[in-house]
Order: sequence, then C-alpha cells, then structure tokens
Amino acid sequence: MSSPVGPSAPSNLSAAAARLARQIEFIVEVDKLKDIFRQTVTTQTRRAENDAEHSWHLCLCVIVLAEHANCGAALDVLRVLKMVIVHDLVEIDAGDTFAYDTAGMAHQHEREAIAAERIFGLLPPDQAREFRGLWDEFEARETPEAKFAAAVDRFQPMLLNCRTQGAAWNRHGITQDRVIARNQHIAAGCSELWTYAERMVQAAVDAGHLQPKPAA
Amino acid sequence: MSSPVGPSAPSNLSAAAARLARQIEFIVEVDKLKDIFRQTVTTQTRRAENDAEHSWHLCLCVIVLAEHANCGAALDVLRVLKMVIVHDLVEIDAGDTFAYDTAGMAHQHEREAIAAERIFGLLPPDQAREFRGLWDEFEARETPEAKFAAAVDRFQPMLLNCRTQGAAWNRHGITQDRVIARNQHIAAGCSELWTYAERMVQAAVDAGHLQPKPAA
Ligand SMILES: [Ca+2]
Repeated sequence: MSSPVGPSAPSNLSAAAARLARQIEFIVEVDKLKDIFRQTVTTQTRRAENDAEHSWHLCLCVIVLAEHANCGAALDVLRVLKMVIVHDLVEIDAGDTFAYDTAGMAHQHEREAIAAERIFGLLPPDQAREFRGLWDEFEARETPEAKFAAAVDRFQPMLLNCRTQGAAWNRHGITQDRVIARNQHIAAGCSELWTYAERMVQAAVDAGHLQPKPAA
Repeated sequence: MSSPVGPSAPSNLSAAAARLARQIEFIVEVDKLKDIFRQTVTTQTRRAENDAEHSWHLCLCVIVLAEHANCGAALDVLRVLKMVIVHDLVEIDAGDTFAYDTAGMAHQHEREAIAAERIFGLLPPDQAREFRGLWDEFEARETPEAKFAAAVDRFQPMLLNCRTQGAAWNRHGITQDRVIARNQHIAAGCSELWTYAERMVQAAVDAGHLQPKPAA
C-alpha cells in the first residue's frame, strides 16, 4: 500500500511524525461516514439520519444507559464506546444495509469485511489490528460489551421510529412481528431496555404508527 | 420540573423503570443536536457539518490520537470521550458560536450555562450532576483530559478547513494570524498535534487557501 501521507505532511518526517500524519489521513477518510445515509429519520426535520450522527447518538446512549447492562458494573464502558465509534466505518465502502433488508443482508458481512480491510488498514498496523478487533468483536456479539453495543445499536433506530410515527417502518411496510423478531437480541445485552422497547412498540401499534402482523 | 416521562411510558412504572424512561426522554431530546449546524463544511459534499457528527468525529480523533496526549498513558480516555460526547449539548438551546465570532462569544458562557441547567436537568439528579461536571470540566480546560478534549475540538475543524480549501475561513475572512491565535491552546493538550497543525496551516497559506495576516 502506498503511504497515505497527505499534502500537509512533507516527506522528511520523523517516524513519530509520519505515524501521526498517517493517523490524521485516517481521520480525514472517515469524514465520509457523514454522507452514508440510513433509513431512520431524525425527530426534528425528519430527514434521513447519517451514520456519523447515528454513531454519536449511540455513544450518548452508552454513557446514559450503561448502568442497565445485564452484566452490571462489570461492563467495560470504554470498550463499548470504542466499538460504537467504529462499528459503522465499513459502511463507507459497503453502504448501509437496512435492518429489514433480507436480500441486502445475504452478502453483507462479506462486503463489510472487505471494507474493514481497506479502511482500518489506513491506520498504523498496531492500531489497524486494534480497530479491526473492535469491529470483529462487535459483529460476533459474544462478549458482554458487544452485546450491550448491539442492544443500543438496535434500540436507537426503534426509538427514533417510535418518535416519528413509525416513518421508516411504514415506508418499508415493516410490521410489528418483524420489529420484534429483528430486535429481540436487545435482551441479550440489556433486558431492562428490551422490556421498555416491547412496551414502546406496543404503544406504537396502539397509536396506529406500526401495523400488527398481517392475518395469515 | 414536571416528569419527562413520554407517551410510551405508562404512569404505573416502578422507580427503576421510571428512571430508565427519564433517561430515554433525555436521549430523545438530544436528537436535536443533529440540527445544530456549524460553519465548518464536510470534505465530501461541502455542506455545513452538524454538532452531532462533529461530536462523533471528535470521539474518533480521541481514540486514534490518545497516545499523543501531553500527559501520555496517564490520560483517562473514557473521561475524555464522555466530555466530547456531551460538550456541545448546550448548543441545542444556545446555538453554535463560530470560533472567530468575538461578539457572539461575549455572552456565550452565560447562555450555555443556562442551557446546561435545562438539558442536563432532564436526567435523573445523580446523572445530571455527573454530566454537568463533565461539561464544566471541559469548559475550564484545567485537567489533562479537558486539555486534550479541547485540543481535538480545535484541531478537527482546522483539519476540515484545510481539506476544503479553507472554505469556512475564507467565507468569514479569517486570516492566518487569527487561526494561530485562536487554536494555539491545542499545544496545552497535545504539543505534537500543534506542531502538525502549524505546518498544516502554513501549507494552506502556501496553497492560497488561507490569507496571511494583512499588512498593518
Ligand atoms: Ca449498521
């Protein structure tokens, strides 16, 4: 791979300065996350939310809700935050896959793994390994931290949907049974949050913002 | 203050469930940060960046650049992240103040402190105190964590400006001397980053993207 040192970094840098310059090129590259749009809309102007602001909103959820994690005070909050900060970077290359797009999900992990190689590979090798490890951990959803990160990653769009009269759900004809099936793993990271979410979804159905399961 | 329990939270909740419901109303309220726009533009489409995606980009900077903090490995990275996640929430009420808007800065802290009372006050009291403490710490810029958070908060818009031909600087007629004066406290949190930034700013001047100090 060619060196990603940019125009502001002359070629006669010390090793330390070259490392910093490489890290800064990564920071510039990931600015692209601000232009990856999701199906969820924001509560104020109901425009499509992008991955960067979604990721920030997850960070906020993590620091507000950490106390409710199933694993309690054992939760490594810093690790959860690192995971949610980087969890969507692969979408710079692979695009956002709507949570209910089963066709799109078929090759999703494959496409995202290729993206992870390129994007995390922009970092110095030790940091590339660390960040790739965080993304792999998030995807595997096995550790308490990954389960909690996945719980907020599923809860946040549900919450925005419920506060926008089910905008994204209705645009795609998503029904209550599919919302429950797709998001119930929230309980694996935070059962209290899932209890809240089930009640919230039922309230959306009662209000006519989400359609119940179609009759067979 | 009236209880911020929303439509999805019935009134017969246990204390634990009521606490969670209150936290979730805070999470909904801060969705407004996605509609607070800054002077800085994004590198891809050159639209105005909003505070939510700016805050995410700072989180990313923190986990990539933490090793360069002046205080070294003593840096409490979790605390820095918490600060940058919440540092701009006051702008939901107080609006964004451009870094070079000296008139706007006159009553900025006053306006923001009133905003902090309302916004952090939406949380349960113990958490309201914690979050307000993080914001006060960030503003005071005395601890190593606050100095490092302030360094990335100043560096990130400089970086975006340099990668967009000085877009925000030129729109407001900002010159090199003002950029240096306004941002040099980056050195207090991360002197290596300031060395990089000074070189980057000089490259922007050399490329004609930033005007030098006007002749006296
Ligand atoms: Ca995603």
